[in-house]
Amino acid sequence: MVRQARAEQTRAAILRAAADVFDQFGYQTTSLGDIIAKAAVTKGALYFHFGSKAELAQAVVDMQHVSWMKIAEWAAAPGTRALNAMIKLSHALATQMINDPVIRGGIRLTLERGSLEHDGRTPYLDWIAMTAEFLNRAVEERDVEPTIDTAGVAHFIVGSFTGLQVLAQVLEERPKLNDTVAQMWRVLLPGLVPAPKLQDLLELAEETRANFIVQPAS
Amino acid sequence: MVRQARAEQTRAAILRAAADVFDQFGYQTTSLGDIIAKAAVTKGALYFHFGSKAELAQAVVDMQHVSWMKIAEWAAAPGTRALNAMIKLSHALATQMINDPVIRGGIRLTLERGSLEHDGRTPYLDWIAMTAEFLNRAVEERDVEPTIDTAGVAHFIVGSFTGLQVLAQVLEERPKLNDTVAQMWRVLLPGLVPAPKLQDLLELAEETRANFIVQPAS
Repeated sequence: MVRQARAEQTRAAILRAAADVFDQFGYQTTSLGDIIAKAAVTKGALYFHFGSKAELAQAVVDMQHVSWMKIAEWAAAPGTRALNAMIKLSHALATQMINDPVIRGGIRLTLERGSLEHDGRTPYLDWIAMTAEFLNRAVEERDVEPTIDTAGVAHFIVGSFTGLQVLAQVLEERPKLNDTVAQMWRVLLPGLVPAPKLQDLLELAEETRANFIVQPAS
Repeated sequence: MVRQARAEQTRAAILRAAADVFDQFGYQTTSLGDIIAKAAVTKGALYFHFGSKAELAQAVVDMQHVSWMKIAEWAAAPGTRALNAMIKLSHALATQMINDPVIRGGIRLTLERGSLEHDGRTPYLDWIAMTAEFLNRAVEERDVEPTIDTAGVAHFIVGSFTGLQVLAQVLEERPKLNDTVAQMWRVLLPGLVPAPKLQDLLELAEETRANFIVQPAS
Protein backbone atom coordinates (compact mmCIF):
# COMPACT_ATOMS: atom_id res chain seq x y z
CA MET A 1 0.00 0.00 0.00
CA VAL A 2 2.82 2.37 0.90
CA ARG A 3 4.51 1.51 -2.38
CA GLN A 4 1.31 2.21 -4.30
CA ALA A 5 0.81 5.58 -2.60
CA ARG A 6 4.40 6.49 -3.45
CA ALA A 7 3.89 5.44 -7.09
CA GLU A 8 0.81 7.65 -7.29
CA GLN A 9 2.72 10.57 -5.83
CA THR A 10 5.46 10.10 -8.41
CA ARG A 11 2.92 9.89 -11.22
CA ALA A 12 1.28 13.13 -10.03
CA ALA A 13 4.66 14.87 -9.73
CA ILE A 14 5.57 13.82 -13.28
CA LEU A 15 2.22 15.10 -14.59
CA ARG A 16 2.63 18.47 -12.84
CA ALA A 17 6.17 18.84 -14.15
CA ALA A 18 5.12 17.84 -17.67
CA ALA A 19 2.23 20.34 -17.67
CA ASP A 20 4.57 23.06 -16.53
CA VAL A 21 7.17 22.35 -19.21
CA PHE A 22 4.52 21.96 -21.97
CA ASP A 23 3.03 25.28 -20.87
CA GLN A 24 6.38 27.04 -21.13
CA PHE A 25 7.78 25.48 -24.29
CA GLY A 26 4.91 23.86 -26.20
CA TYR A 27 4.63 20.26 -27.31
CA GLN A 28 7.19 20.13 -30.14
CA THR A 29 10.03 21.84 -28.30
CA THR A 30 9.60 19.87 -25.04
CA SER A 31 11.72 16.75 -24.58
CA LEU A 32 11.20 13.94 -22.07
CA GLY A 33 14.59 14.99 -20.66
CA ASP A 34 13.16 18.42 -19.75
CA ILE A 35 10.28 16.74 -17.93
CA ILE A 36 12.55 14.28 -16.10
CA ALA A 37 14.76 17.18 -14.95
CA LYS A 38 11.78 19.26 -13.84
CA ALA A 39 10.10 16.39 -11.97
CA ALA A 40 13.40 15.27 -10.45
CA VAL A 41 12.63 11.61 -11.17
CA THR A 42 14.59 8.93 -12.97
CA LYS A 43 14.04 8.06 -16.61
CA GLY A 44 12.93 4.62 -15.39
CA ALA A 45 10.29 6.14 -13.13
CA LEU A 46 8.91 8.21 -15.97
CA TYR A 47 8.73 5.23 -18.35
CA PHE A 48 7.10 3.14 -15.62
CA HIS A 49 4.13 5.53 -15.72
CA PHE A 50 4.12 6.91 -19.28
CA GLY A 51 5.21 5.26 -22.52
CA SER A 52 5.92 8.38 -24.56
CA LYS A 53 5.74 12.16 -24.75
CA ALA A 54 2.43 11.82 -26.62
CA GLU A 55 0.99 9.69 -23.78
CA LEU A 56 2.10 12.27 -21.19
CA ALA A 57 0.58 15.12 -23.20
CA GLN A 58 -2.67 13.17 -23.49
CA ALA A 59 -2.70 12.63 -19.71
CA VAL A 60 -2.19 16.37 -19.08
CA VAL A 61 -4.98 17.26 -21.51
CA ASP A 62 -7.31 14.68 -19.94
CA MET A 63 -6.57 15.90 -16.43
CA GLN A 64 -7.24 19.50 -17.44
CA HIS A 65 -10.46 18.58 -19.25
CA VAL A 66 -11.77 16.57 -16.26
CA SER A 67 -10.85 19.42 -13.93
CA TRP A 68 -12.70 22.00 -16.05
CA MET A 69 -15.74 19.76 -16.40
CA LYS A 70 -15.84 19.47 -12.58
CA ILE A 71 -15.77 23.27 -12.33
CA ALA A 72 -18.66 23.37 -14.81
CA GLU A 73 -20.66 20.98 -12.58
CA TRP A 74 -19.86 23.09 -9.52
CA ALA A 75 -20.92 26.31 -11.32
CA ALA A 76 -24.15 24.71 -12.52
CA ALA A 77 -25.15 23.40 -9.07
CA PRO A 78 -28.94 23.08 -8.59
CA GLY A 79 -30.57 26.38 -7.70
CA THR A 80 -28.14 28.48 -9.74
CA ARG A 81 -29.71 30.29 -12.69
CA ALA A 82 -28.04 29.27 -15.96
CA LEU A 83 -26.77 32.72 -16.92
CA ASN A 84 -25.26 33.24 -13.45
CA ALA A 85 -23.67 29.81 -13.74
CA MET A 86 -22.08 30.75 -17.09
CA ILE A 87 -20.61 33.95 -15.68
CA LYS A 88 -19.34 32.17 -12.56
CA LEU A 89 -17.91 29.37 -14.67
CA SER A 90 -16.04 31.73 -17.00
CA HIS A 91 -14.35 33.46 -14.06
CA ALA A 92 -13.58 30.18 -12.29
CA LEU A 93 -11.89 28.87 -15.46
CA ALA A 94 -9.93 32.10 -15.90
CA THR A 95 -8.80 32.01 -12.27
CA GLN A 96 -7.71 28.40 -12.46
CA MET A 97 -5.88 29.12 -15.70
CA ILE A 98 -3.90 31.80 -13.87
CA ASN A 99 -3.20 29.75 -10.73
CA ASP A 100 -2.80 26.16 -11.85
CA PRO A 101 0.10 25.09 -14.10
CA VAL A 102 -1.65 21.83 -14.98
CA ILE A 103 -4.55 23.80 -16.46
CA ARG A 104 -2.18 26.11 -18.34
CA GLY A 105 -0.30 23.14 -19.78
CA GLY A 106 -3.54 21.43 -20.80
CA ILE A 107 -4.87 24.57 -22.51
CA ARG A 108 -1.67 25.19 -24.39
CA LEU A 109 -1.63 21.58 -25.59
CA THR A 110 -5.31 21.77 -26.57
CA LEU A 111 -4.68 24.94 -28.58
CA GLU A 112 -1.67 23.36 -30.29
CA ARG A 113 -3.28 19.97 -30.81
CA GLY A 114 -6.35 21.54 -32.29
CA SER A 115 -4.17 22.61 -35.17
CA LEU A 116 -2.37 19.29 -35.40
CA GLU A 117 -4.85 16.47 -34.95
CA HIS A 118 -8.44 15.66 -35.64
CA ASP A 119 -9.35 14.61 -32.13
CA GLY A 120 -8.41 18.13 -31.05
CA ARG A 121 -12.04 18.89 -31.96
CA THR A 122 -13.63 17.13 -28.99
CA PRO A 123 -13.00 19.67 -26.20
CA TYR A 124 -14.29 22.52 -28.36
CA LEU A 125 -17.43 20.60 -29.37
CA ASP A 126 -18.04 19.64 -25.70
CA TRP A 127 -17.83 23.28 -24.59
CA ILE A 128 -20.05 24.53 -27.42
CA ALA A 129 -22.70 21.91 -26.57
CA MET A 130 -22.54 22.75 -22.85
CA THR A 131 -22.75 26.50 -23.51
CA ALA A 132 -25.76 26.01 -25.78
CA GLU A 133 -27.44 24.02 -23.00
CA PHE A 134 -26.77 26.82 -20.50
CA LEU A 135 -28.21 29.36 -22.96
CA ASN A 136 -31.31 27.26 -23.58
CA ARG A 137 -31.90 27.03 -19.84
CA ALA A 138 -31.33 30.79 -19.53
CA VAL A 139 -33.99 31.35 -22.21
CA GLU A 140 -36.43 29.18 -20.19
CA GLU A 141 -35.55 31.24 -17.11
CA ARG A 142 -36.19 34.40 -19.16
CA ASP A 143 -32.68 35.73 -18.53
CA VAL A 144 -31.89 35.48 -22.25
CA GLU A 145 -34.10 36.72 -25.09
CA PRO A 146 -36.01 33.86 -26.79
CA THR A 147 -35.10 35.34 -30.21
CA ILE A 148 -31.42 34.49 -29.62
CA ASP A 149 -29.86 31.78 -31.82
CA THR A 150 -28.48 29.83 -28.85
CA ALA A 151 -26.35 27.45 -30.95
CA GLY A 152 -24.78 30.35 -32.85
CA VAL A 153 -24.14 32.38 -29.69
CA ALA A 154 -22.67 29.32 -27.94
CA HIS A 155 -20.22 28.94 -30.84
CA PHE A 156 -19.35 32.62 -30.57
CA ILE A 157 -18.82 32.54 -26.79
CA VAL A 158 -16.55 29.49 -26.94
CA GLY A 159 -14.66 31.09 -29.85
CA SER A 160 -14.25 34.35 -27.91
CA PHE A 161 -13.14 32.60 -24.74
CA THR A 162 -10.61 30.57 -26.75
CA GLY A 163 -9.29 33.70 -28.46
CA LEU A 164 -8.95 35.53 -25.13
CA GLN A 165 -6.80 32.66 -23.87
CA VAL A 166 -4.66 32.86 -27.02
CA LEU A 167 -4.17 36.61 -26.51
CA ALA A 168 -3.44 36.17 -22.80
CA GLN A 169 -0.76 33.61 -23.68
CA VAL A 170 0.79 35.48 -26.62
CA LEU A 171 0.72 38.90 -24.97
CA GLU A 172 1.74 37.45 -21.59
CA GLU A 173 -1.32 38.99 -19.97
CA ARG A 174 -2.65 35.95 -18.17
CA PRO A 175 -2.90 37.67 -14.76
CA LYS A 176 -5.48 40.02 -16.36
CA LEU A 177 -7.65 37.19 -17.68
CA ASN A 178 -10.50 37.86 -15.23
CA ASP A 179 -10.62 41.51 -16.32
CA THR A 180 -10.77 40.40 -19.94
CA VAL A 181 -13.61 37.99 -19.12
CA ALA A 182 -15.45 40.77 -17.24
CA GLN A 183 -15.08 42.93 -20.37
CA MET A 184 -16.58 40.09 -22.42
CA TRP A 185 -19.74 40.00 -20.29
CA ARG A 186 -20.08 43.80 -20.37
CA VAL A 187 -20.14 43.63 -24.17
CA LEU A 188 -22.24 40.46 -24.51
CA LEU A 189 -25.01 40.92 -21.95
CA PRO A 190 -26.78 43.80 -23.77
CA GLY A 191 -27.13 41.55 -26.83
CA LEU A 192 -28.48 38.60 -24.83
CA VAL A 193 -30.57 39.83 -21.93
CA PRO A 194 -34.09 41.37 -21.98
CA ALA A 195 -33.78 45.15 -21.48
CA PRO A 196 -35.59 45.32 -18.10
CA LYS A 197 -33.16 42.78 -16.59
CA LEU A 198 -29.98 44.22 -18.11
CA GLN A 199 -28.89 46.53 -15.29
CA ASP A 200 -29.31 43.82 -12.62
CA LEU A 201 -27.40 41.27 -14.65
CA LEU A 202 -24.57 43.68 -15.45
CA GLU A 203 -24.23 44.30 -11.70
CA LEU A 204 -24.35 40.59 -10.96
CA ALA A 205 -21.54 40.06 -13.49
CA GLU A 206 -19.36 42.68 -11.76
CA GLU A 207 -20.08 41.12 -8.33
CA THR A 208 -19.20 37.69 -9.65
CA ARG A 209 -15.92 39.01 -11.02
CA ALA A 210 -15.12 40.59 -7.63
CA ASN A 211 -15.58 37.20 -5.93
CA PHE A 212 -12.65 35.74 -7.81
CA ILE A 213 -9.51 36.98 -6.17
CA VAL A 214 -6.51 35.81 -8.06
CA GLN A 215 -3.35 34.72 -6.29
CA PRO A 216 -0.16 36.26 -7.61
CA ALA A 217 1.04 33.95 -10.39
CA SER A 218 3.68 31.48 -9.22
CA MET B 1 14.59 41.64 -67.60
CA VAL B 2 12.99 38.41 -68.75
CA ARG B 3 15.20 36.50 -66.37
CA GLN B 4 14.19 38.79 -63.50
CA ALA B 5 10.50 38.40 -64.26
CA ARG B 6 10.95 34.64 -64.30
CA ALA B 7 12.81 34.74 -60.98
CA GLU B 8 9.97 36.73 -59.45
CA GLN B 9 7.44 34.24 -60.77
CA THR B 10 9.40 31.39 -59.23
CA ARG B 11 9.65 33.23 -55.91
CA ALA B 12 5.87 33.83 -55.91
CA ALA B 13 5.19 30.19 -56.81
CA ILE B 14 7.41 29.01 -53.94
CA LEU B 15 5.65 31.34 -51.50
CA ARG B 16 2.20 30.15 -52.58
CA ALA B 17 3.25 26.52 -52.28
CA ALA B 18 4.87 27.13 -48.88
CA ALA B 19 1.76 28.88 -47.57
CA ASP B 20 -0.39 26.01 -48.75
CA VAL B 21 1.77 23.34 -47.12
CA PHE B 22 2.14 25.35 -43.87
CA ASP B 23 -1.64 25.77 -43.80
CA GLN B 24 -2.20 22.04 -44.16
CA PHE B 25 0.52 20.66 -41.91
CA GLY B 26 1.72 23.48 -39.63
CA TYR B 27 5.25 24.76 -39.22
CA GLN B 28 6.89 21.90 -37.33
CA THR B 29 5.65 19.08 -39.52
CA THR B 30 6.40 20.80 -42.85
CA SER B 31 9.76 20.05 -44.51
CA LEU B 32 11.43 22.03 -47.27
CA GLY B 33 11.07 18.86 -49.38
CA ASP B 34 7.25 19.14 -49.11
CA ILE B 35 7.43 22.73 -50.34
CA ILE B 36 9.80 21.88 -53.20
CA ALA B 37 7.47 19.10 -54.31
CA LYS B 38 4.37 21.30 -54.08
CA ALA B 39 6.01 24.23 -55.93
CA ALA B 40 7.55 21.91 -58.54
CA VAL B 41 10.87 23.76 -58.37
CA THR B 42 14.40 22.53 -57.78
CA LYS B 43 16.09 22.62 -54.39
CA GLY B 44 18.57 25.10 -55.91
CA ALA B 45 15.76 27.43 -56.98
CA LEU B 46 14.28 27.38 -53.49
CA TYR B 47 17.62 28.12 -51.82
CA PHE B 48 18.29 30.91 -54.33
CA HIS B 49 15.26 32.74 -52.92
CA PHE B 50 15.02 31.55 -49.29
CA GLY B 51 17.77 30.49 -46.91
CA SER B 52 15.70 28.33 -44.57
CA LYS B 53 12.26 27.12 -43.56
CA ALA B 54 12.15 29.89 -40.95
CA GLU B 55 12.85 32.52 -43.62
CA LEU B 56 10.09 31.12 -45.84
CA ALA B 57 7.62 31.11 -42.96
CA GLN B 58 8.55 34.71 -42.14
CA ALA B 59 7.96 35.69 -45.82
CA VAL B 60 4.50 34.03 -45.78
CA VAL B 61 3.57 35.78 -42.54
CA ASP B 62 4.81 39.14 -43.88
CA MET B 63 2.91 38.73 -47.14
CA GLN B 64 -0.28 37.87 -45.27
CA HIS B 65 0.14 40.78 -42.85
CA VAL B 66 0.75 43.29 -45.69
CA SER B 67 -2.24 41.92 -47.57
CA TRP B 68 -4.54 42.28 -44.52
CA MET B 69 -3.28 45.78 -43.80
CA LYS B 70 -4.14 46.74 -47.42
CA ILE B 71 -7.64 45.39 -46.89
CA ALA B 72 -7.87 47.50 -43.74
CA GLU B 73 -6.91 50.62 -45.74
CA TRP B 74 -9.48 49.76 -48.39
CA ALA B 75 -12.19 49.23 -45.77
CA ALA B 76 -11.33 52.51 -44.05
CA ALA B 77 -11.42 54.57 -47.28
CA PRO B 78 -12.36 58.26 -46.71
CA GLY B 79 -16.09 58.77 -46.41
CA THR B 80 -16.70 55.39 -44.76
CA ARG B 81 -17.97 55.62 -41.20
CA ALA B 82 -15.64 53.80 -38.80
CA LEU B 83 -18.17 51.22 -37.56
CA ASN B 84 -19.19 50.37 -41.14
CA ALA B 85 -15.50 50.05 -42.01
CA MET B 86 -14.95 47.59 -39.14
CA ILE B 87 -17.87 45.41 -40.22
CA LYS B 88 -16.76 45.50 -43.87
CA LEU B 89 -13.19 44.74 -42.86
CA SER B 90 -14.14 41.73 -40.72
CA HIS B 91 -16.08 40.17 -43.61
CA ALA B 92 -13.34 40.97 -46.14
CA LEU B 93 -10.77 39.25 -43.91
CA ALA B 94 -13.03 36.23 -43.40
CA THR B 95 -13.66 35.96 -47.15
CA GLN B 96 -9.99 36.18 -48.01
CA MET B 97 -9.19 33.61 -45.35
CA ILE B 98 -11.60 31.22 -47.08
CA ASN B 99 -10.41 31.92 -50.64
CA ASP B 100 -6.68 32.60 -50.41
CA PRO B 101 -4.24 29.87 -49.35
CA VAL B 102 -1.50 32.44 -48.68
CA ILE B 103 -3.72 34.09 -46.08
CA ARG B 104 -4.61 30.75 -44.52
CA GLY B 105 -0.93 29.79 -44.31
CA GLY B 106 -0.03 33.16 -42.79
CA ILE B 107 -2.79 32.91 -40.18
CA ARG B 108 -1.91 29.38 -39.19
CA LEU B 109 1.74 30.38 -38.80
CA THR B 110 0.77 33.48 -36.80
CA LEU B 111 -1.38 31.38 -34.46
CA GLU B 112 1.42 28.83 -34.03
CA ARG B 113 4.20 31.39 -33.76
CA GLY B 114 2.29 33.36 -31.20
CA SER B 115 2.73 30.42 -28.90
CA LEU B 116 6.36 29.87 -29.84
CA GLU B 117 8.12 33.20 -30.14
CA HIS B 118 8.02 36.64 -28.63
CA ASP B 119 7.73 38.55 -31.90
CA GLY B 120 4.48 36.68 -32.46
CA ARG B 121 2.99 39.56 -30.43
CA THR B 122 3.31 42.22 -33.10
CA PRO B 123 0.38 41.31 -35.39
CA TYR B 124 -1.99 41.06 -32.41
CA LEU B 125 -0.85 44.41 -30.98
CA ASP B 126 -1.20 46.04 -34.44
CA TRP B 127 -4.76 44.79 -34.80
CA ILE B 128 -5.75 45.82 -31.26
CA ALA B 129 -4.36 49.34 -31.84
CA MET B 130 -6.14 49.64 -35.20
CA THR B 131 -9.44 48.38 -33.77
CA ALA B 132 -9.21 50.86 -30.88
CA GLU B 133 -8.67 53.67 -33.42
CA PHE B 134 -11.75 52.56 -35.39
CA LEU B 135 -13.78 52.49 -32.18
CA ASN B 136 -12.58 55.96 -31.12
CA ARG B 137 -13.61 57.34 -34.52
CA ALA B 138 -16.95 55.55 -34.21
CA VAL B 139 -17.49 57.25 -30.83
CA GLU B 140 -16.79 60.65 -32.47
CA GLU B 141 -19.27 59.72 -35.20
CA ARG B 142 -21.79 58.81 -32.45
CA ASP B 143 -22.16 55.25 -33.78
CA VAL B 144 -20.65 53.86 -30.56
CA GLU B 145 -21.62 54.88 -27.02
CA PRO B 146 -19.09 57.29 -25.46
CA THR B 147 -19.19 55.26 -22.21
CA ILE B 148 -17.52 52.30 -23.99
CA ASP B 149 -13.98 51.38 -22.91
CA THR B 150 -12.64 51.40 -26.48
CA ALA B 151 -9.24 49.87 -25.59
CA GLY B 152 -10.90 47.03 -23.67
CA VAL B 153 -13.47 46.37 -26.39
CA ALA B 154 -10.74 46.44 -29.08
CA HIS B 155 -8.87 43.75 -27.13
CA PHE B 156 -12.07 41.71 -26.87
CA ILE B 157 -12.92 42.04 -30.59
CA VAL B 158 -9.42 40.99 -31.71
CA GLY B 159 -9.52 38.12 -29.21
CA SER B 160 -12.93 36.99 -30.47
CA PHE B 161 -11.91 37.23 -34.11
CA THR B 162 -8.76 35.22 -33.35
CA GLY B 163 -10.76 32.58 -31.50
CA LEU B 164 -13.28 32.29 -34.33
CA GLN B 165 -10.39 31.58 -36.70
CA VAL B 166 -9.07 28.91 -34.31
CA LEU B 167 -12.51 27.27 -34.17
CA ALA B 168 -12.93 27.49 -37.96
CA GLN B 169 -9.59 25.75 -38.40
CA VAL B 170 -10.01 23.09 -35.72
CA LEU B 171 -13.64 22.29 -36.55
CA GLU B 172 -12.97 22.54 -40.30
CA GLU B 173 -15.71 25.12 -40.64
CA ARG B 174 -13.82 27.77 -42.56
CA PRO B 175 -16.41 28.06 -45.34
CA LYS B 176 -18.87 29.27 -42.66
CA LEU B 177 -16.54 32.00 -41.36
CA ASN B 178 -18.66 34.87 -42.71
CA ASP B 179 -21.72 33.48 -40.94
CA THR B 180 -19.72 33.28 -37.72
CA VAL B 181 -18.57 36.89 -38.16
CA ALA B 182 -22.17 37.98 -38.84
CA GLN B 183 -23.15 36.26 -35.59
CA MET B 184 -20.40 38.20 -33.81
CA TRP B 185 -21.83 41.55 -34.92
CA ARG B 186 -25.39 40.52 -34.00
CA VAL B 187 -24.18 39.87 -30.44
CA LEU B 188 -21.78 42.84 -30.18
CA LEU B 189 -23.75 45.71 -31.68
CA PRO B 190 -26.38 45.96 -28.91
CA GLY B 191 -23.56 46.48 -26.39
CA LEU B 192 -21.79 49.14 -28.48
CA VAL B 193 -24.35 51.19 -30.37
CA PRO B 194 -26.75 53.88 -29.01
CA ALA B 195 -30.26 52.36 -28.79
CA PRO B 196 -31.89 54.65 -31.43
CA LYS B 197 -29.31 53.61 -34.04
CA LEU B 198 -29.27 49.90 -33.23
CA GLN B 199 -31.87 48.65 -35.70
CA ASP B 200 -30.28 50.51 -38.64
CA LEU B 201 -26.81 49.27 -37.79
CA LEU B 202 -27.97 45.67 -37.37
CA GLU B 203 -29.51 45.89 -40.85
CA LEU B 204 -26.36 47.45 -42.26
CA ALA B 205 -24.34 44.56 -40.79
CA GLU B 206 -26.61 42.00 -42.50
CA GLU B 207 -26.36 43.87 -45.83
CA THR B 208 -22.58 44.00 -45.52
CA ARG B 209 -22.46 40.28 -44.89
CA ALA B 210 -24.64 39.66 -47.97
CA ASN B 211 -22.16 41.59 -50.15
CA PHE B 212 -19.45 39.05 -49.49
CA ILE B 213 -20.17 36.07 -51.67
CA VAL B 214 -17.68 33.35 -50.98
CA GLN B 215 -16.33 31.18 -53.77
CA PRO B 216 -16.42 27.46 -53.09
CA ALA B 217 -13.16 26.62 -51.31
CA SER B 218 -10.49 25.32 -53.68
